[in-house]
Amino acid sequence: MTRVHGEAPAGLLEAFWAYERALMSDDLAELDRLFADAPDTLRGAAAGLLVGHDEISRFRGGRGGAPRRTILEVHVRPTGPDHALVVATTRLERGGHGLQTQVWRSGPQGWKVVAAHVSVPAPAHDPRIWRVVGDPLVRSLGDGSLDGETVAVKDLFAVEGQPIGAGNPAWLEAAPAEAEHAPTVRALLDSGASVRGIARTDEFAYSLAGTNAHHGTPPNGAAPRRLSGGSTSGPASAVALGHATIGLGTDTGGSIRVPAAYQGLFGLRTTHGAVTVGGVLPLAPSFDTVGWLTREAELLERVGRVLLPTRAVAPPQDLVVVPSLLALAEPDVETAVERFAAEAGARSQEWDLTDLPAWREAFRVLQASEAWRAHGTWLATRLDTLGPDVRGRFEAASAITPEEADTARDQVAAARRVIRDFVGDRAVLLPSASSVAPRIGDDVGRVRDATMLLTCLAGIAGLPALSIPTTTGEGLPAGVCVVAAPGRDLDLLALAARDDRLRR
Amino acid sequence: MTRVHGEAPAGLLEAFWAYERALMSDDLAELDRLFADAPDTLRGAAAGLLVGHDEISRFRGGRGGAPRRTILEVHVRPTGPDHALVVATTRLERGGHGLQTQVWRSGPQGWKVVAAHVSVPAPAHDPRIWRVVGDPLVRSLGDGSLDGETVAVKDLFAVEGQPIGAGNPAWLEAAPAEAEHAPTVRALLDSGASVRGIARTDEFAYSLAGTNAHHGTPPNGAAPRRLSGGSTSGPASAVALGHATIGLGTDTGGSIRVPAAYQGLFGLRTTHGAVTVGGVLPLAPSFDTVGWLTREAELLERVGRVLLPTRAVAPPQDLVVVPSLLALAEPDVETAVERFAAEAGARSQEWDLTDLPAWREAFRVLQASEAWRAHGTWLATRLDTLGPDVRGRFEAASAITPEEADTARDQVAAARRVIRDFVGDRAVLLPSASSVAPRIGDDVGRVRDATMLLTCLAGIAGLPALSIPTTTGEGLPAGVCVVAAPGRDLDLLALAARDDRLRR
Repeated sequence: MTRVHGEAPAGLLEAFWAYERALMSDDLAELDRLFADAPDTLRGAAAGLLVGHDEISRFRGGRGGAPRRTILEVHVRPTGPDHALVVATTRLERGGHGLQTQVWRSGPQGWKVVAAHVSVPAPAHDPRIWRVVGDPLVRSLGDGSLDGETVAVKDLFAVEGQPIGAGNPAWLEAAPAEAEHAPTVRALLDSGASVRGIARTDEFAYSLAGTNAHHGTPPNGAAPRRLSGGSTSGPASAVALGHATIGLGTDTGGSIRVPAAYQGLFGLRTTHGAVTVGGVLPLAPSFDTVGWLTREAELLERVGRVLLPTRAVAPPQDLVVVPSLLALAEPDVETAVERFAAEAGARSQEWDLTDLPAWREAFRVLQASEAWRAHGTWLATRLDTLGPDVRGRFEAASAITPEEADTARDQVAAARRVIRDFVGDRAVLLPSASSVAPRIGDDVGRVRDATMLLTCLAGIAGLPALSIPTTTGEGLPAGVCVVAAPGRDLDLLALAARDDRLRR
Repeated sequence: MTRVHGEAPAGLLEAFWAYERALMSDDLAELDRLFADAPDTLRGAAAGLLVGHDEISRFRGGRGGAPRRTILEVHVRPTGPDHALVVATTRLERGGHGLQTQVWRSGPQGWKVVAAHVSVPAPAHDPRIWRVVGDPLVRSLGDGSLDGETVAVKDLFAVEGQPIGAGNPAWLEAAPAEAEHAPTVRALLDSGASVRGIARTDEFAYSLAGTNAHHGTPPNGAAPRRLSGGSTSGPASAVALGHATIGLGTDTGGSIRVPAAYQGLFGLRTTHGAVTVGGVLPLAPSFDTVGWLTREAELLERVGRVLLPTRAVAPPQDLVVVPSLLALAEPDVETAVERFAAEAGARSQEWDLTDLPAWREAFRVLQASEAWRAHGTWLATRLDTLGPDVRGRFEAASAITPEEADTARDQVAAARRVIRDFVGDRAVLLPSASSVAPRIGDDVGRVRDATMLLTCLAGIAGLPALSIPTTTGEGLPAGVCVVAAPGRDLDLLALAARDDRLRR
């Protein structure tokens, strides 16, 4: 039933059909053979552009086959003595139509694809980003300073009538519908915002990567084919992609700051205890905070005026940057944060961080102990419902003794005093994460460890921490974290909003 | 900041940038000038392929500009003495990245695009199809014959915790959250299905086109750039695109059968009164029925066993096709239905349909009178919240006198007897709609009138009517409607399932 329009050069249609058969049988060797073996071979789709035969081959090897389809129409056009364009419309077995544009080149080994561009219909919604999404899902309950704003709610917050899913299908299955909104959700609705939907989280928020084993990694809206960052992964991607204007999430050990840094967003982790965690599934209550993400500092501040306690605002005057913290980041991020700090007028201030690895370990142990206290009863017989990373963390958590937890609590308390003393009434600038968003599939162990050394400071000390987006020399998003004394959340927001206005 | 890879022939990048500037300023004349003025010029995207300079120009004229973007990377490759490929990655101002592939040709008037393919990130969900969608929106409430099936619920049915939107934003705004599911929704959930989401309807279900003035026309999953059909428009597109397996809707005057025909689906309008309309917003109670759409006859039947009263099944043996009804369809649809009828072993049976236009008019008047009785109080001061088509229908409805309605009711009752007598214990085959899905933007007045002559028969007589998908010679979807005596819904479903098995 295929209709062919145009004049095909000799052998081209045979190669075209060979490619189609190989695609349908996921014959990777044949697909590799039919794509030009060159570093400038291109293969693109809505998800991004792959450059070079190797990258294209790796992508094919990892995706487990293309969707079943039939070719409807083929438009052929020679574009030179040894090149031709082939545009084909397709019908997908799962429903809908697709489009494929290929440029072929004829050489000694026959016709090869030198560039391809593929489109398929979008799914009902992207399940990597959203569990439920609507236009809106929940209407605003009043008028106010957030009129017209749309909220992506992390799947840890109570939304009336919906269960809390926590990123784990078994938990979701067993969860009851919530009787009322979490107070933070309710406050946003009362101020004129609507809830766009419930967005994905890493399982039980116990990760910084965004790689949910069940739902996939939400696409990074600012850096294609790179990690979203987590655990507030879905809200961050939703905001970066323009699906919502506000991402409502939590930050225990970096879960707002890391996705903000990876996706070029503003993000605030609030002072511990300043914003109620009512109606939010806990991870580690000693560190759990509510936070939010936006594309504009002005809106970040506007949300703060709704959710934070009212107080007189006085942005910090004394900005400092700590060389030993900068040095924990990869060189590209270090340079970007250093440049930002210089432009912001921050002065350099040394700080003896000999104890930082021990603080970070105490943070890890206490967080794990509390996480197991929060979820161990339910998880004890259900560890196999977790993806490997989070499972490993909970398994380690289950082995922590009460004595280890007590020791860690004492160390955390001591570290809190040291960190608060150092911060004083200053604003301390440091990298929000140790690196730019890693490529999906890369090992993230090392950057996670370095990132935790940076993020645990605000976590341990219960301090507000604002992530401001900046850009590396390569053009990738990176985050500058600004930490201040407890309760100075609005001061940080005012600083960022003023700075953002000056830059525009 | 744009990076250019590869060697660009003289003048190509200048033309590329001129095109980009014209796109950003929506300079239609310049865009037309930069696309080759030929009937084989191509412009494609996920939404479909446009062929020819004229079609591309019309599309651009109607869309009101492209999304704001910046070009990030440009890959250039000459593909002959006067052709070149340009692949560009873009960053959208609203968020996310895009991709654009162009083939350019150099001629006496400079470089021109001969083929283009554009991708942009998908929105959070397609608001033409869905009001709210989830993974799932509502979990199943039991196990049963519909385990794993997913339901797109027309936005006229009560879904617990959600308002009924009826396709009209003002109505939605004022609607309360429903306290419980409509019994039909509940029955599907109890049988193992989950609710995927709430899908769009034409306003108050008072249209057969699918062209909602507020939310746009849902894409036709089987025929790109053509109408979805309505009023069960969203559920039909959702099923045709593979977003859901069951579309739950209503059929008053064709609202299941027309979208089924346009999108290549199976669809059942049930016997009037056989399935409760509890929890469903009424249009015209004398004709309103619940119905559903699927891609497979087997599943259509399985849903019927859940929603319809149990009874012994005996598929009709005597299939007849009426030449004067066939003749109401466009030639391509007439031929397709005739061929289907012949293959199914239907015999030709004449029927004096002199009164059909009068029946159809009585149907129209009574439907309108009841529609105004159902919604006139609310709409009287809110007609300006309706799109022009539906508004015109309600305005006409408001002018119908009680005497006119009484007369129409008598005519409908008389026609009902005549139609039921003719059908008897046979199955009558006719076109589900008078045409294939019209192209979006085409005038639909004539096909609507002819379609109503066909669809009003089952409506007037309260008969079950099953639409079976077939294909025209052009390869477009068309529907064969099978009508039987009241209560024989399961007989029709068994007929279709058996027939579908035979064809596979």
